[in-house]
Amino acid sequence: MTFDPSIRIGVLGGGQLGRMMIQSAMNLNLEIASMDPDPNAPCKSLASHFVNGDITSYDEVLAFGEAFDVITVEIENVNVEALEELERRGKKVFPQPRVLRTIKDKGLQKQFYLDHGIPTSDFVFIDQKEELKNHTDLLPAANKLRTEGYDGRGVQIIKTEADLNKGFEAPSILEKFVDYHKEISVIVARNEKGDMETFPVVELEYHPEQNLVEFLFSPSELEEELRIKARDLAKKVISEFDMVGLLAVEMFATKDGEILVNECAPRTHNSGHHTIEGNITSQFEQHIRAILNLPLGDTSVKGSAVMINLLGHPDYSGQAKYEGIEEAMAHSGMHLHLYGKKLTKPFRKMGHATLVGDDLQALKDKAREFKESIKIIA
Amino acid sequence: MTFDPSIRIGVLGGGQLGRMMIQSAMNLNLEIASMDPDPNAPCKSLASHFVNGDITSYDEVLAFGEAFDVITVEIENVNVEALEELERRGKKVFPQPRVLRTIKDKGLQKQFYLDHGIPTSDFVFIDQKEELKNHTDLLPAANKLRTEGYDGRGVQIIKTEADLNKGFEAPSILEKFVDYHKEISVIVARNEKGDMETFPVVELEYHPEQNLVEFLFSPSELEEELRIKARDLAKKVISEFDMVGLLAVEMFATKDGEILVNECAPRTHNSGHHTIEGNITSQFEQHIRAILNLPLGDTSVKGSAVMINLLGHPDYSGQAKYEGIEEAMAHSGMHLHLYGKKLTKPFRKMGHATLVGDDLQALKDKAREFKESIKIIA
Repeated sequence: MTFDPSIRIGVLGGGQLGRMMIQSAMNLNLEIASMDPDPNAPCKSLASHFVNGDITSYDEVLAFGEAFDVITVEIENVNVEALEELERRGKKVFPQPRVLRTIKDKGLQKQFYLDHGIPTSDFVFIDQKEELKNHTDLLPAANKLRTEGYDGRGVQIIKTEADLNKGFEAPSILEKFVDYHKEISVIVARNEKGDMETFPVVELEYHPEQNLVEFLFSPSELEEELRIKARDLAKKVISEFDMVGLLAVEMFATKDGEILVNECAPRTHNSGHHTIEGNITSQFEQHIRAILNLPLGDTSVKGSAVMINLLGHPDYSGQAKYEGIEEAMAHSGMHLHLYGKKLTKPFRKMGHATLVGDDLQALKDKAREFKESIKIIA
Repeated sequence: MTFDPSIRIGVLGGGQLGRMMIQSAMNLNLEIASMDPDPNAPCKSLASHFVNGDITSYDEVLAFGEAFDVITVEIENVNVEALEELERRGKKVFPQPRVLRTIKDKGLQKQFYLDHGIPTSDFVFIDQKEELKNHTDLLPAANKLRTEGYDGRGVQIIKTEADLNKGFEAPSILEKFVDYHKEISVIVARNEKGDMETFPVVELEYHPEQNLVEFLFSPSELEEELRIKARDLAKKVISEFDMVGLLAVEMFATKDGEILVNECAPRTHNSGHHTIEGNITSQFEQHIRAILNLPLGDTSVKGSAVMINLLGHPDYSGQAKYEGIEEAMAHSGMHLHLYGKKLTKPFRKMGHATLVGDDLQALKDKAREFKESIKIIA
C-alpha cells in the first residue's frame, strides 16, 4: 500500500496539544493546518497554514474544514454542528462529532456512562443553584458546569452545606466525591479498522488549589489486576462510543478496589505528555495513526517517567521569562517542552518537563525539586 | 540564570539536517530561520522565516546573517568570507568561519591533521590529473576533489593504474586506501565554556556504489579500548580546531588496532540520526546546546539502534510516493523520518528510519528487510 503524505489535515484549536501533534506529524511529512482564536497560538508558526478564527462559529469552522480531507480537534469546545455538516459532505471527522457532542456536555457524558454500564461516581443533574440543597446526601461533592469547563475552570467544590452558595447558577452536575486511593488515566486509541491500543496506566497528582495536573507518574504502581481492569475499561468506553481517534479516560482507583470513570476527553491529553520520551509511541503519533487509519503503535513504556506541568508563577503576568532552565538541562533524562506562549499568567500551562529513568521513586523526588527551581515569571 | 528563548538563530542551508535541528529547537521555544537555494527545501515550512537565497554568495549571506544573534550551518559549502565579516561585526558564528575554511577544503583538512598530530591516512596533493601517475605507490586510493564534494560526489576510486584517467582535472588529493576493519564515527560537541561531550562510537556501512551511508549501527561493537581511543581522538580534533558546535569525526578502525581520522564535518551529520531515538540527547539538541553555550546533554545510548538511510529508488524520478510505510509503522521500535522532499531521484536522501531495541543483531537483520520493503518511487 502506498503512503501519501499529501493528505490534507486540519485541526481545530492551536494550543500546545495541537503543537505537539504537528511536531509528531512532521516525521511523516504530514502537514497540518490549524485554526485558533488567538493570533499568537502555540501552533501559529508550526502549522502548514494557520487560520486565526473562532472555532465555536458554525460558518468559520465549516469554511476552515472544507479545505481538508481529515479534520480533528485538540479541544472539545468547537462548533459540533459545523463538524456534522462536514461529515455529511464526506469529510473524515475524528473524533466523530456525535462523540464530541456527548463528551463536551458533562451531563450527557455521565448519562452515557450510566446507559452503557460504565462504572462512574454518583451524580445528579442541577439546573439552578437552588436545587443543590436537595442533594446534601451527595456531599462532599463537585459541582461541575455541564459545558465549557476546562483546565480547572467550571468546577466548584461543595464540601458541606455551608458551601452550597458557591454552586453554579447554570446547568451543571453535582458529583459525589469518590474516596479514592489513586487518580489514574488510560489513553486509548482506535482506528477505522477497529484496532485498539491502550497506553499503560499512569497516576496523576493534582495541584491542591488549581484542579490542574501537577505531576504524572508512569507507569502506575497499582496492582496488575487493577491496571488490567482500567485498560479494559478504557477500551470499553471507546468501543461504546464507536469512536475513532484518541480518548483519554480519567479514572479513580477506589480504596475498595473499584475502577470508576471520572471523565474523558476525545483527544490528546495532559496525562499523555510523558509518552513523547517515556513510551515507544507517543500519544501524538498514536492520534495521527488512529485518524489516518494507520497501524497503531506499540504503547509500551521504555522506563519510568515523571511529567511536571510547568505553570505560570502565581505572582506574574506578562512577557514570559524562564528561570532554572539551564540547571534542568544539565540533568540527564530531563526533557523540556516549552509551548511557545509569549505571555505568562498565573497558573497558565506554559510547558512541561518529563524526567525519564529507571527508578520511579528517585524521579519523583527529583521532579519535586525541579517543580520548585523552574520558575516562569515576567 | 534566566533563559531567553527570543534569541535569534539563523541557519545556512535548509536541508534535512536543518529541518531536524529546527524540530529539536521547538521544544525550547527557539525559533530558527533558514536560507537555502531551493525554494522547496525541507526547512521551508518549519523555519520561523525562510529565505530563498544563495548560501555561497557573500552579499546574500551577509544580508541574511545581519538579522540574527547566532548563525550556524547545516552544510560546509557556504560563503566563509561573509561569515568572517559577521563575526567581526560581533555575531556569534558557530562553527567558526576559520574552521569551516579548513574543513571545506579536503587538502587543508588533511594538512591540519598532519600539523596537529592527528593520525590520518597517507595522501598527496594533486593539481592536475597528469600528476596522478607519479603516485602509483599509493594505489589503491581515492582521488577526492579538495572542495565541493558532498554525499558521494567528488570522489573517484583509483584502484589500479588503469583507473588513472578517472582522476579529477582540478585541485584534489589522492588518499591511500586504508585496510580497515570498520568504518566508525564519533560526534563530539563543545560549547563556549569549553565543555566537551562525545557520543558513543557508531559503525557505518556504506552503499557499495554510491559512497553513501546505507546502515548505521549503534553502539559500536569494537573493543572498549578502541572505542575510548576513538572518542578521545574526536575530542582532540575539536580541541585543536578550538571549535564551538558539533563535529562529526569519521574514522577508520584499522585491522592492526589503529584509529585514523578519515574526514570530519563541523555540523550535525548522517552518522548521528539514530540519536533522536537511540540516545538520551539527540545530536540536533546537542548542537543547539553547544552553540547557545548551554550545558551539554547526556549522550548515553538508551539501547541498540540501527539507522537506515531511505534513498530514492534508482529507477524513479518525480513526485515522491512511499511504499512499505504502513508495514514499517506496524513494527515496534521502528521510527520513520521523512524529510519533506516533494521530488525523488535516484539515490536522493529522502528520509531515514531508526530501529531501536535490545538485540543489535536482530535489529540488523530487520533493518536489511526494511531496506528492501520501503521503496521511494514516483
